[in-house]
Amino acid sequence: MMKALIYHGPQRRSWEDTPDPQIVDPTDAVVRVDAVTICGTDLHILKGDVPAVRPGTILGHEAVGTVMATGASVSTIKQGDRVLVSCISACGRCRYCRTGMFGQCLGGGGWILGHRVNGTQAEQVRVPFADTSTHVLPDGVDDEAALMLADILPTAYEVGVLNGQVRPGDTVAVIGAGPIGLAAITTAHLFTPSHIVAVDPAPARLEAAKRLGADLLIGAGDDAAAAVAELTGGLGADVAIEAVGIPETFELCTRLVRPGGHVANVGVHGAPATLHLEDLWIRNLTITTGLVDTYSTPALLDMIAAGRLDPRTFITHRFALNDIAAAYDTFSDPMTSGALKIVLTRG
Amino acid sequence: MMKALIYHGPQRRSWEDTPDPQIVDPTDAVVRVDAVTICGTDLHILKGDVPAVRPGTILGHEAVGTVMATGASVSTIKQGDRVLVSCISACGRCRYCRTGMFGQCLGGGGWILGHRVNGTQAEQVRVPFADTSTHVLPDGVDDEAALMLADILPTAYEVGVLNGQVRPGDTVAVIGAGPIGLAAITTAHLFTPSHIVAVDPAPARLEAAKRLGADLLIGAGDDAAAAVAELTGGLGADVAIEAVGIPETFELCTRLVRPGGHVANVGVHGAPATLHLEDLWIRNLTITTGLVDTYSTPALLDMIAAGRLDPRTFITHRFALNDIAAAYDTFSDPMTSGALKIVLTRG
Amino acid sequence: MMKALIYHGPQRRSWEDTPDPQIVDPTDAVVRVDAVTICGTDLHILKGDVPAVRPGTILGHEAVGTVMATGASVSTIKQGDRVLVSCISACGRCRYCRTGMFGQCLGGGGWILGHRVNGTQAEQVRVPFADTSTHVLPDGVDDEAALMLADILPTAYEVGVLNGQVRPGDTVAVIGAGPIGLAAITTAHLFTPSHIVAVDPAPARLEAAKRLGADLLIGAGDDAAAAVAELTGGLGADVAIEAVGIPETFELCTRLVRPGGHVANVGVHGAPATLHLEDLWIRNLTITTGLVDTYSTPALLDMIAAGRLDPRTFITHRFALNDIAAAYDTFSDPMTSGALKIVLTRG
Amino acid sequence: MMKALIYHGPQRRSWEDTPDPQIVDPTDAVVRVDAVTICGTDLHILKGDVPAVRPGTILGHEAVGTVMATGASVSTIKQGDRVLVSCISACGRCRYCRTGMFGQCLGGGGWILGHRVNGTQAEQVRVPFADTSTHVLPDGVDDEAALMLADILPTAYEVGVLNGQVRPGDTVAVIGAGPIGLAAITTAHLFTPSHIVAVDPAPARLEAAKRLGADLLIGAGDDAAAAVAELTGGLGADVAIEAVGIPETFELCTRLVRPGGHVANVGVHGAPATLHLEDLWIRNLTITTGLVDTYSTPALLDMIAAGRLDPRTFITHRFALNDIAAAYDTFSDPMTSGALKIVLTRG
Repeated sequence: MMKALIYHGPQRRSWEDTPDPQIVDPTDAVVRVDAVTICGTDLHILKGDVPAVRPGTILGHEAVGTVMATGASVSTIKQGDRVLVSCISACGRCRYCRTGMFGQCLGGGGWILGHRVNGTQAEQVRVPFADTSTHVLPDGVDDEAALMLADILPTAYEVGVLNGQVRPGDTVAVIGAGPIGLAAITTAHLFTPSHIVAVDPAPARLEAAKRLGADLLIGAGDDAAAAVAELTGGLGADVAIEAVGIPETFELCTRLVRPGGHVANVGVHGAPATLHLEDLWIRNLTITTGLVDTYSTPALLDMIAAGRLDPRTFITHRFALNDIAAAYDTFSDPMTSGALKIVLTRG
Repeated sequence: MMKALIYHGPQRRSWEDTPDPQIVDPTDAVVRVDAVTICGTDLHILKGDVPAVRPGTILGHEAVGTVMATGASVSTIKQGDRVLVSCISACGRCRYCRTGMFGQCLGGGGWILGHRVNGTQAEQVRVPFADTSTHVLPDGVDDEAALMLADILPTAYEVGVLNGQVRPGDTVAVIGAGPIGLAAITTAHLFTPSHIVAVDPAPARLEAAKRLGADLLIGAGDDAAAAVAELTGGLGADVAIEAVGIPETFELCTRLVRPGGHVANVGVHGAPATLHLEDLWIRNLTITTGLVDTYSTPALLDMIAAGRLDPRTFITHRFALNDIAAAYDTFSDPMTSGALKIVLTRG
Repeated sequence: MMKALIYHGPQRRSWEDTPDPQIVDPTDAVVRVDAVTICGTDLHILKGDVPAVRPGTILGHEAVGTVMATGASVSTIKQGDRVLVSCISACGRCRYCRTGMFGQCLGGGGWILGHRVNGTQAEQVRVPFADTSTHVLPDGVDDEAALMLADILPTAYEVGVLNGQVRPGDTVAVIGAGPIGLAAITTAHLFTPSHIVAVDPAPARLEAAKRLGADLLIGAGDDAAAAVAELTGGLGADVAIEAVGIPETFELCTRLVRPGGHVANVGVHGAPATLHLEDLWIRNLTITTGLVDTYSTPALLDMIAAGRLDPRTFITHRFALNDIAAAYDTFSDPMTSGALKIVLTRG
Repeated sequence: MMKALIYHGPQRRSWEDTPDPQIVDPTDAVVRVDAVTICGTDLHILKGDVPAVRPGTILGHEAVGTVMATGASVSTIKQGDRVLVSCISACGRCRYCRTGMFGQCLGGGGWILGHRVNGTQAEQVRVPFADTSTHVLPDGVDDEAALMLADILPTAYEVGVLNGQVRPGDTVAVIGAGPIGLAAITTAHLFTPSHIVAVDPAPARLEAAKRLGADLLIGAGDDAAAAVAELTGGLGADVAIEAVGIPETFELCTRLVRPGGHVANVGVHGAPATLHLEDLWIRNLTITTGLVDTYSTPALLDMIAAGRLDPRTFITHRFALNDIAAAYDTFSDPMTSGALKIVLTRG
């Protein structure tokens, strides 16, 4: 028996005993969880917003751990390996996986951990498609840094920065300075933009954005479009990254960018937005949406190992795995706690 | 004095005497109009929808003609040259022109002919920025074929096919089979898609789409999304090209494409559309808008000269320039006349 | 026991009895060979040019067949499926496979069939990494057409046409009009170049090039560089595709292309070439080399199924599988036999 | 009359009186030279290696200055503007200029200053095609920083870093740590590679490379290929940038890169190199050459203005313009003087 955080329907979770996971398919691995975190999506699930998650499911889709067992066809990881368990599982065989779009896997993968199968907020986790859904950690990358690559960093980087085609010299506006927005600011810096504009009503978040390299901060009362126009000689931003997930911030993005600019939506939306095509049809805009594919995870790992990127700056709180109930409380109230990312580790 | 089609305010146009154009700036040319056509945009202007067009302006932004005079700094065309006068004028010097985005010219160009300055529906036209706004016609490209490159073909090709990133083997859905949609079908073929789906309520337009190579036709009563899903094993189209300009057809495009697909908007919109981000945020969509830049015009000319592309198929009616009033009547009522593109030539 | 074409060292091959292949790894499939062909590489092996091939190895790396058995982890093909066996095997898990560069597989794949493991010139073949190394054939794609996708078409398309970045309107020079050069001509047409120039000393091959769409033929006594210059207003070709594999033809390619042009090497070389950097450093050239990755195979299959591409035009001779000795004789002497591709089928 | 550095044939130069330049064409400007530098190419000219330079020509193709007069069609700069005079002049009208390949200009531009027309090592210079060959300097970019954008930085960035497609996380090898190699190291950093390997026999240059961010230094006695292989787990570098211009260093680049890697040649070569296609045909290499186009100059200026890039680190010596003879002596003997870039300013 092991302990795990089990979803029992809206508003109901418990850290309780449950059977140890077993190898089911020859492509599986069982991984001991050494470090795990909580995602905003877990809170959505607990609100009942993601009905695909059935009561009885173990939550969590991010972990760093140690391989305990592998199925017969697993060839790239072995018992004792320290691995990153990615939020995206990839069958490695379907049309989408063959082209690196693992998030859209048609062969049983995609976002499944803590969603359609048991997840990582537990002492152990069964990882399907282990060869193509884990990454062996190089020496010199510690658990905490690696854990930030399970979801937040590749999401901000791929769906925000790479989809937005940030280039050296650009002006990049990031709307929303929560964990994803801050990760977008951090990974936008990999391309040396001239300016990073952070937009958020919360002063503490703007302060964090500034620490991570934003050079223009736009708060509650400010006119973001006017400020960006002034910064760019009236043209607008080259790239706007939406990191909130509501119609207003998406629509703001479409107003902030210059003709020929890019709007990269990262936020998870629950309602439609208005697209002002009567203004935008003529402006050569490119708008992208996306779930992370995690194709960038190896490069991000390389940069951490080489000391070019330190994602531990996102970690504000640390708990023992057994204290996950308290960790959820802290993470659920970021305005009070200041929580960005929380790391839970085995004792 | 020459004759020209002059806009006198909503619903009022006349073919009347007006002074010959003169060289004003050293970058100008004066071109005798040998062939000219009418665009849907001209009808919008005549409805009063484009207030930037002041009464007294000569309409028209597409022509083939013969150079009569050039300003002191014009170096690439000379008197007697047969040239294409493009719908887009380019200063050739601004940030956008230096990167090939001529449609977004900040130096006084962009779409100006028949809009902010006198246009081409006349016996002669002053062409600003002549070096970067005209194309010398190679032997073997006749006036009618070239005329289709003044607007409709590069628009459909750049804003539809190239922005949509059509690739060999793709399934491409074109929504709207009017002149622009048909030009999108024609230029999509340059990339050998596996399937081209044409969607239009008018049977005659679907028939034209079929002649130009569409292999799945979806009419008024059909369920486009279901038909495309069936054709693509449930996935959706790789590319959807919007060639109508109303919210419904744009929204249809976003429903027709597969995860990872492209929606290329070509239509001119007068009202906002709804973007269903609650469904689309996770689907890795790329949506593009745009005015034509005409960077593709030289390649399209090469293909016509080489016999690889014949845009004369879009021409349904021919008139003498003096009969432009009748030509407007024919073009204004395409459902009756069947008009796609009309060519007017000097006697 | 089954029959197979076994390599016994330089100049020695025999069609003889050998044990049936078995499932060894859980990722394996055993496939009954329904159609198979011979590649120029097989002739190189028989000359002793490829020492990695050990005596006792069954040759052949191209086949269409029927799945007879699958290992425990194979999930995308099943007994009875008609499949294409690709020349490239892909582990699906390594750094290169995760980015679609299957030809450079580091996990035991790449070109292994008929090279490092037993191949397809047999009644049956064990196919390693079956999920990621075979393609289920859609109805409407017959065995012969599919067989051309095992190697020759994706090689010419990816390494020649896509690496060369052929675009609509380009002038493309293909040096060498053997099977690979002709396949490059055929797949270059998918992008509607304005001109395709074929260069080959053999009149029969130029004739074949013309049938497949080359519009300028350059034979033994002609000056290719002068002819291309004349065709392109003195500039040179946009793309030159090397499909021979000797220094002279490679060097010709670098002379044929315009500033900013692309040289795509497809030929298999046995000796170094001279790169005239004293002339080329200033010409903005892009030179590419490569082994096929087969990432394009699904799209090529789609085009065949849709009737947009018919690769059966490359097939000049047909034999029963039992007559493979005669087939080798025919294929080894193409100047006499006129052989391009030969299909062998089970009785 | 003004002073200028005039080439009088091999080994002969003098700083002497010559007539002031005048506006000749309506696209010209005359610029007073405020700061100018010397390029390695100027030394080549003085050796007699560039016969296109006729005796009597004023040398120099890099300057920062103040506009004194403009021709009738010049519209984007005006008297009194502080401008960067770029090493590349662009007609702005030809096929190449319309696609941003200004270095390959067919309309009379390209590298012409100090080559085919009088250059910038003078008190004043006539700048042809002034609208498309100069850049107005923003406040906050000083003359010295801007001067580094006349040639060295865009050359290293475009021809080395961008052609080499450096991406975040890459391992980049730069062969040659002279001014161009050091500029490649500096601009490679804009993309946050994991590792930058500098290869040069001169310890002082390696020391400079280290200061600019190289993290692996390979000197005279070291085995560069072995060191890069060890750093990359045996694979090789993602990108190798050639910044010397001799066959040995180019050939080293082709050995250093991994399968699928990029070799970007920046060096000016005087002799052919050997391309080992017998090894490289299978390795999916991309090799690029090029003269700078200067399309990146506006973005580089933005980065300097924003404080993201400081190219003044390349400046080792400063002289008054009247002391240009001494400046040439210093620049001609960098092993003794340690000279990288020298700035000459009017008194």
